[in-house]
Amino acid sequence: MAGARAFLHHLNGNQVAVHVPSRSRASRPSSSGCRSAMVTMSQNQSYSASVNAEIEVHLKQAIPMRPPLEVFEPMNHFSFGAPRTTAPALCVAACELVGGQRDQAMAAAAALHLMRAASFTHEQLPLTDRPRPKFRPVTHHAYSPNIELLLPDAIVPFGFELLAKSDDPAQDNSERILRVMIEIARAMGSQGMVEGQYYEVERSQSEGEGLNDVGWIVDVCKKKEGGLHACGAACGAILGGGSEEEIEKLRKFGLYVGMIRGILHGVGRKEKGLETTVEELRNLALKELEEFKGGNLEAISGFVNL
Amino acid sequence: MAGARAFLHHLNGNQVAVHVPSRSRASRPSSSGCRSAMVTMSQNQSYSASVNAEIEVHLKQAIPMRPPLEVFEPMNHFSFGAPRTTAPALCVAACELVGGQRDQAMAAAAALHLMRAASFTHEQLPLTDRPRPKFRPVTHHAYSPNIELLLPDAIVPFGFELLAKSDDPAQDNSERILRVMIEIARAMGSQGMVEGQYYEVERSQSEGEGLNDVGWIVDVCKKKEGGLHACGAACGAILGGGSEEEIEKLRKFGLYVGMIRGILHGVGRKEKGLETTVEELRNLALKELEEFKGGNLEAISGFVNL
Repeated sequence: MAGARAFLHHLNGNQVAVHVPSRSRASRPSSSGCRSAMVTMSQNQSYSASVNAEIEVHLKQAIPMRPPLEVFEPMNHFSFGAPRTTAPALCVAACELVGGQRDQAMAAAAALHLMRAASFTHEQLPLTDRPRPKFRPVTHHAYSPNIELLLPDAIVPFGFELLAKSDDPAQDNSERILRVMIEIARAMGSQGMVEGQYYEVERSQSEGEGLNDVGWIVDVCKKKEGGLHACGAACGAILGGGSEEEIEKLRKFGLYVGMIRGILHGVGRKEKGLETTVEELRNLALKELEEFKGGNLEAISGFVNL
Repeated sequence: MAGARAFLHHLNGNQVAVHVPSRSRASRPSSSGCRSAMVTMSQNQSYSASVNAEIEVHLKQAIPMRPPLEVFEPMNHFSFGAPRTTAPALCVAACELVGGQRDQAMAAAAALHLMRAASFTHEQLPLTDRPRPKFRPVTHHAYSPNIELLLPDAIVPFGFELLAKSDDPAQDNSERILRVMIEIARAMGSQGMVEGQYYEVERSQSEGEGLNDVGWIVDVCKKKEGGLHACGAACGAILGGGSEEEIEKLRKFGLYVGMIRGILHGVGRKEKGLETTVEELRNLALKELEEFKGGNLEAISGFVNL
């Protein structure tokens, strides 16, 4: 790519200009930005660690190691062995930010983790016509492809079940849960995660690997990590009883946070020169939080640096 | 297998003796049974045809052919090209039998079809370690394995979305819908459809094809078609406002109906000598309907002959 250019991205219906620099002319984030980032990063790390530990406990209770072991052993393996994303913790953080209780978002956070673990396992599946795309890390296959096909097919409905079971007549939360199910279904579906995966596969088959196409990286990150985090934050806000405006602000915050993660740790991690784009996404994300107040505002702000 | 023997099957927690004959000594169903069967078969065929036509319309509205065509064209293909099962029509019939309206069960019926279409597509997926089991029909692969992997991953959440969207505050049906989601998640999951598929794959890899092992056929049919139809009937009864007793009777009816279909049209279709087992399952099924009254009792009874 020659020179810097601005991409207009339709992000949740709004056109937002994200500046995508050339490799050679990437600017560094300002030092004052770095200092404030470091403060919230440390707060966020301890917050995320405590939330993730609670999600882990919730998942371990939901997926015990029990007979039939030929089913539950690989189910445990795929559920807990998949790389962690920050979307579940963000779901909990968003719930708390709008005044909800942590346990109100726990089932949705666990479901989000399971759904992503299932889709991650299918991404690694050796298919007869598909060499592993080079931008994907090498994974060890502990099970046969058949098991890697079937178990995620079981994990996805299990995630929906977990969520449906969190319905509590005492809390009168069934409308919120049904809404969250629609959110998660869309984030994982043909215009979310699956679309991002389709972009990846299409590119890796038709034009080599396309690792240096920044526009393509941004598109994939928007659909995959962006969509997952947007969904997580929106779901947390819905379950915590946030207003429609709060839900939409947190959805956008999650989208930017997820895109940053995708660029830094996902498909864009080998691409240099995206620092300006990341910094721009950080600013856009933090702007969405401007009108929020609450005990965990500092902690949730730190998600832009994870 | 030498001689007739009775298998004790745990069917929904109840031990039910199903007589499994040897191939050589299979008895034919009684002629009076045949006559009454033919009466209800004809009624059922027109009933099923009309219900299926309505489900088709519902699905066509839910999955329009629209851009992006690279997503919606295969989604249409897999959704409408998969073999039809009777579980969705049974869902509607059970809803009507307990006094519900047809449209109350339509989203669940459509979701059931989509879930089965998705799992059917994954069954056909060419994997690097999996030759096609001989008992599965040869299917034409219109798309690449990648698409056959990804699109069903999108269809399953879409099925849940369809169901969640059928929530109607005016009907105050959200508790019923959440319950139905749990039912469908379990029927498709690791102790339902996926377990049946696992049995199939395991057998076809370890001991040739195992087509003459009647116990194995019954187990697979119970988990796959049996579980799907049990779920369909129970969901219809839940959505139609049936009592707990009615829901459980219809769940068992569905289980037997599904097992019959699995034996006659699914994995057992090449196995001769199962007429007595089928006849016994028909009797068990019809016994579950004894206390029901209603306009479509004759039509739903006919599902044992489809």
